[in-house]
Amino acid sequence: MTKILVAPGAFKGSVSAKQASTAIAKGLLYKDPSLEIIELPVSDGGNDFVEVLLHTLSGEELFARVRDPLGHEVRAKWGWCKGELAVIEMAEASGLHLLSPDALNPLKASSFGTGQLLVEALNKGAKKILLGIGGSATVDGGVGALQALGVRFLNQKGVVVNPYEVNLSEVQQVDLQGLDPRLKEISLEIACDVSNPLIGEQGAAKVFAPQKGATNKQVEMLEEGLSHWAELLEKATGKDITKLPGGGAAGGIAAGFVACLEATLSNGIDLVLDAFAFDTIVQQVDWVITGEGSLDRQSLKGKTPVGVARRAKQFEKKVVALAGSVEQTIALNQYFDAVFSIVPGPCTLEDALSFTERNLSFASGQLACFLSSMKK
Amino acid sequence: MTKILVAPGAFKGSVSAKQASTAIAKGLLYKDPSLEIIELPVSDGGNDFVEVLLHTLSGEELFARVRDPLGHEVRAKWGWCKGELAVIEMAEASGLHLLSPDALNPLKASSFGTGQLLVEALNKGAKKILLGIGGSATVDGGVGALQALGVRFLNQKGVVVNPYEVNLSEVQQVDLQGLDPRLKEISLEIACDVSNPLIGEQGAAKVFAPQKGATNKQVEMLEEGLSHWAELLEKATGKDITKLPGGGAAGGIAAGFVACLEATLSNGIDLVLDAFAFDTIVQQVDWVITGEGSLDRQSLKGKTPVGVARRAKQFEKKVVALAGSVEQTIALNQYFDAVFSIVPGPCTLEDALSFTERNLSFASGQLACFLSSMKK
Repeated sequence: MTKILVAPGAFKGSVSAKQASTAIAKGLLYKDPSLEIIELPVSDGGNDFVEVLLHTLSGEELFARVRDPLGHEVRAKWGWCKGELAVIEMAEASGLHLLSPDALNPLKASSFGTGQLLVEALNKGAKKILLGIGGSATVDGGVGALQALGVRFLNQKGVVVNPYEVNLSEVQQVDLQGLDPRLKEISLEIACDVSNPLIGEQGAAKVFAPQKGATNKQVEMLEEGLSHWAELLEKATGKDITKLPGGGAAGGIAAGFVACLEATLSNGIDLVLDAFAFDTIVQQVDWVITGEGSLDRQSLKGKTPVGVARRAKQFEKKVVALAGSVEQTIALNQYFDAVFSIVPGPCTLEDALSFTERNLSFASGQLACFLSSMKK
Repeated sequence: MTKILVAPGAFKGSVSAKQASTAIAKGLLYKDPSLEIIELPVSDGGNDFVEVLLHTLSGEELFARVRDPLGHEVRAKWGWCKGELAVIEMAEASGLHLLSPDALNPLKASSFGTGQLLVEALNKGAKKILLGIGGSATVDGGVGALQALGVRFLNQKGVVVNPYEVNLSEVQQVDLQGLDPRLKEISLEIACDVSNPLIGEQGAAKVFAPQKGATNKQVEMLEEGLSHWAELLEKATGKDITKLPGGGAAGGIAAGFVACLEATLSNGIDLVLDAFAFDTIVQQVDWVITGEGSLDRQSLKGKTPVGVARRAKQFEKKVVALAGSVEQTIALNQYFDAVFSIVPGPCTLEDALSFTERNLSFASGQLACFLSSMKK
């Protein structure tokens, strides 16, 4: 009996990872009911991070009223699993999608709400927190979140600066005394899918701030603020996080959390796969089917399907990737035994997005037929 | 060592069967140079019939000056193989594509030029003639072609009617005396991919004449003429061809040739596969890859890929079909072990047609990877 692990990510703009895995499993079983299927929808830390983790770990969806990047109240989803694991997506509190394009303000935008979500998790008794940080609107180095967790920032006059009023360049001192002591007892893992450092040409300000609405002038101001922040952090914690790979993720919250909270940065997909005990599961199967909306140059940087394939290949499993769109000229077979596009013919992007489930089921069905013909 | 027979048809509007088989073979070998490939581009009797047969049988391309459907001179290609086999496409002499839309005239259009091509073949010493009859402009029951071969048609006054001046309803007698005697010594096989009879609701006039420019009134006149033709044929040959399946193909030339020339009608793809000794070749391989531009409802009627698959399945070979466009809701797996679309993602029809070779190579390469992963 052939066993297949179905572990796709979301098909962006179309179906969730869970919908994708259901469609694939359906197509496989329709053509070969004898297949043994394990469905394991995955995420690389993007905006379905909480949904995917809650689904597979059978967690509970919770909501908290926290502050958005500009201080307005927002209802943020987070997840609670196994009585000890909190799953948090930064974007729920501090996401770019929470602001209209004309409200973007990277000089003011604060990660305070993300810190509030961490407090919620601590209040619930979390022993471990998994934090997805994609899609943030902030370039505050994590200052806002640290304020929510009890860190104080003092200006030149020795006065504590309120959340949403911090100008990083004017902060004179960081006081970690008030940091929530429960943070010492827990593990905080950040799903981080970039390797950009906090500052410099590849840093948080220069590379990501323009997407968050920063003008050239503001990018310079943010860069100056983050440089100053790195010095303050070194003074306060003794750690130099300027060269930390990934420290520039999500406006530098990664660097701030590593320095002050001893957070660890992990590749998003690896963090999720570890949370699912992927290595144990994959050893039980013959084949792995993964996929995402578009398999392109970006995918090779270790996003969902490549991340799944890398781990599956450690156990010499065969891996097929399905995608709505496949870039033919890249080294896909370095990771996958085979790659197939699921679109059945010429079609608009709109149609491809509308019929993803049907197309996934059909293509998976053909894979099942192909596999079963090999057995004859 | 895995052996693969690559036997696609043309991808209409894009690449010939030969170009398709080259692209598939290239993709397979690029990913797995150890594969043993036999290329066998095929045709179901459509407009690449001569090209495909000449290619595979290493025949010679010849040209003859003959008359087009309205009597004008045209240079028509035909093929000569193995010193005894002539390959003729009716459309080269009597094709719809030879006339501008406003010159279509199904009451006048004559298959005379097709008869002339048969004479050429006889003059060359043909022992066997394969005739493809797709794309004709005529609804003359083969009368014109028979005239070229020596049959005489007499009117009510007992006068012989000239070619291009025949009104079938007014023909009083058919005189087979002058029929070229060499026709008795040869075999004439017609590649016929429809089962429509000569006359009636599903007949040559009612079903096909409108595509050839006939008005409703003209369809009736043609139907009357063909009915009368059937009676004349029965009188002259003793054969009732009114119910012959396929007799209505190509304006009824099939019926005329079966009655007067003892021609045989064969499914186009089967005729081509027989000419290639497909059954012998296919027994040497493990897999067959076939394909065509669009795999749809029409394909299931026994066109190229289904025809190839049927024959391959007689020898229990595994068959994969590749297509530019796949209709997902039809019973494709009744014939194919697996079917894959070659388009790599959303695209226009124009792009799909432009990049068929690249897409075929990529998809075939992935099949090679998939196959080779199974061996591990």
